[in-house]
Amino acid sequence: MEWINDGNLDFLKKRKVEAKEEAQKSVASIISNVKTGGDEALKAYTKQFDGIALEAIRVTESEIREAAARVPEQVLKAIKQAAQNIRAFHEKQVPQSWTETVDQGVVLGQKVTALDSVGVYVPGGTACYPSSVLMGAIPALVAGVKRVVLVSPPQKNGLIADGVLAAAREIGIHEIYQVGGAQAIAALAYGTESIQPVDKIVGPGNLYVMLAKKHVFGDVAIDSLAGPSEIAVVADETANAGWIAADLLSQAEHDRLSMPVLVTTSQAFGKEVEQEIEKQLKELPRVEIASASVNNQGKIILVKDIQEAAAAVNQIAPEHLELATNDPHEILPLIRNAGAIFLGKYSSEPVGDYFAGPNHIIPTNGSARYASPLGVDSFIKHSSIIEYSDVALQANGQAIAAFARFEGLEGHARAVEKRMKGAVIHG
Amino acid sequence: MEWINDGNLDFLKKRKVEAKEEAQKSVASIISNVKTGGDEALKAYTKQFDGIALEAIRVTESEIREAAARVPEQVLKAIKQAAQNIRAFHEKQVPQSWTETVDQGVVLGQKVTALDSVGVYVPGGTACYPSSVLMGAIPALVAGVKRVVLVSPPQKNGLIADGVLAAAREIGIHEIYQVGGAQAIAALAYGTESIQPVDKIVGPGNLYVMLAKKHVFGDVAIDSLAGPSEIAVVADETANAGWIAADLLSQAEHDRLSMPVLVTTSQAFGKEVEQEIEKQLKELPRVEIASASVNNQGKIILVKDIQEAAAAVNQIAPEHLELATNDPHEILPLIRNAGAIFLGKYSSEPVGDYFAGPNHIIPTNGSARYASPLGVDSFIKHSSIIEYSDVALQANGQAIAAFARFEGLEGHARAVEKRMKGAVIHG
Repeated sequence: MEWINDGNLDFLKKRKVEAKEEAQKSVASIISNVKTGGDEALKAYTKQFDGIALEAIRVTESEIREAAARVPEQVLKAIKQAAQNIRAFHEKQVPQSWTETVDQGVVLGQKVTALDSVGVYVPGGTACYPSSVLMGAIPALVAGVKRVVLVSPPQKNGLIADGVLAAAREIGIHEIYQVGGAQAIAALAYGTESIQPVDKIVGPGNLYVMLAKKHVFGDVAIDSLAGPSEIAVVADETANAGWIAADLLSQAEHDRLSMPVLVTTSQAFGKEVEQEIEKQLKELPRVEIASASVNNQGKIILVKDIQEAAAAVNQIAPEHLELATNDPHEILPLIRNAGAIFLGKYSSEPVGDYFAGPNHIIPTNGSARYASPLGVDSFIKHSSIIEYSDVALQANGQAIAAFARFEGLEGHARAVEKRMKGAVIHG
Repeated sequence: MEWINDGNLDFLKKRKVEAKEEAQKSVASIISNVKTGGDEALKAYTKQFDGIALEAIRVTESEIREAAARVPEQVLKAIKQAAQNIRAFHEKQVPQSWTETVDQGVVLGQKVTALDSVGVYVPGGTACYPSSVLMGAIPALVAGVKRVVLVSPPQKNGLIADGVLAAAREIGIHEIYQVGGAQAIAALAYGTESIQPVDKIVGPGNLYVMLAKKHVFGDVAIDSLAGPSEIAVVADETANAGWIAADLLSQAEHDRLSMPVLVTTSQAFGKEVEQEIEKQLKELPRVEIASASVNNQGKIILVKDIQEAAAAVNQIAPEHLELATNDPHEILPLIRNAGAIFLGKYSSEPVGDYFAGPNHIIPTNGSARYASPLGVDSFIKHSSIIEYSDVALQANGQAIAAFARFEGLEGHARAVEKRMKGAVIHG
């Protein structure tokens, strides 16, 4: 962990990972080939990148059932309980349509509609993330999206991971395709013989998935561009150094580029956490990844008071933020930029990653400055409602026409004036 | 206008405008040069593209005041009234933070925060769109964004259009820069000596502005990628053909690529509208643009009933939709995809473009399938709140650890187990 004692957070400027032009070109070519080649292109790329010769692109019902049967009972139970909690939280996010009658019989409002179809990308390869299935798909289901599709690359055994299929089955998702990478994003955006295109693509993935999402953005919607993830913990000497070290390591074990940051008012506490990290690190199975993260990205930022702590957090705009001080509610109002905020000593980050209910697909890489966790609002859109009365049109028509004419849009002015009683129609 | 009598809407597939590689390269190079060259690069591009040798990049207070004084009183009054209506509508969109105590003393919720800074792009050149200032900036102000910045290219006289500056002044925006194009987007995204970077860039622009927004997306937030705009009017024989023709033309006069579409159950009415368009078109000042739009993009879609009409609309996903049938509320529930919906015969599109209150920055080019008009939600983000109690952690810790361990994230499991009383700590 690198100590920062002078408030200089310039390390944040180096966070952005510039995508290499080569990777961008490769992604553009994959997308173009899937557009023209369809299923055959998907199969060729799956052979090339995943080493798997797919027979069918869609996972069958019996494959889903058999995979779920291989998952331990205890894990299935945890998936079920997590799904319930995630559903309950997201149900509180559902927005309602509204209309309101304002002056002169004018009705204005918003009509809320779910998207028709959504694709959820679930990372695969050597990893297995059933939690990503729940977090990506449940908000869409709660929003009322009728078609929720899952894509995930096949593992070395030629199948999507059992846990991923089990989680999909638990929440009632049956349209699942065993393709990953940029080719899966292209298929979801433009369609192939097997895969109908969707309106929006969500879910985290590797650099190629991210570049592909950026490429298709505008033809379909995407959630956000996921980058390396962060945790910032604000803690004082009342916190348990062993617990805080474990939380920082839980972020570090994700990825070499993960950034674990401790912000503390106490140098002694910071040193204690540092020692705990060193101790616990050695005993972690993913010690190699976690060490790289801790050594290259890890920071301990020493601050004077909670104002300085909050200022540092707001500059970092972390994906995850733990407030583990004696009175976390004292700092909370000062926090402007953070994806998910964990308060108090029992709110360890993994509680939110898996179980509590709020989403774990959260803005990374400082984008909590302007973005929100995935939620029901990611899967609905609203339409404005405007119903003007005759009275209101007569009363305001002149102002509207004057405004339009000033902008040089005579046709706009005339469309209104034609409806005005006794108005002089120009032209 | 082209008649479509067989329900075949394949013309929609041709809507997407593929950006030429040349334009993309040019935009990438402009952005890179502004990143390194700062203000000097902005001035060089303004000379090259707008023909103006800028002395200062920021517009002065006296320039704003003098510009506003040159705008006719009647227009200033219309701007003021429109601003009031827009503010009133968007105030109804402001979301609230919430927390809720669920089982076992667990508190979950969402904290809503406005973005810190936003840049609004206002198109310029030969046009003058004060309405774009109001629609782009007011939702940000209502959301509580502290720094709202305006950029717009200088006109041939070397100044931003009077109306644009007058509208900015009316709503209290004073940080205004006279730069446009991809160079303005680059400056807002990465900053120069004169312009501090912002968190989000909104507002419509030409192809270069759009490509630049897509390029910087991910480093900053953007609203959407604006394309050619559409109006669809659903009308039966009870509608006034002259009024409907005028509404279709008000869209057509925007741009050669604008798409005016009539969807009607009555062939006779369709023919009447067609004749009215021909008659009114000749008398429009922007006859050349409107003719190109009507002749190349205009469609009359003949349908059997309102079900077919709604199905056609949902496929088009128009930016603007007028429901000008005898009972518009009969169709409204069938509409899934439309940016702004105008109901009844007095709700002419320009009423919404300028005045009613809902936003006129609306998803174009079919993106109403998945996107919403600009609004207060475009300028806030929310953070999840998770506060777990000791009791809840003890009760659920085993499930959380089992889930984490199944995903191969041992560090996550341990972070939770360390907090569990009497738990066996693995490893």
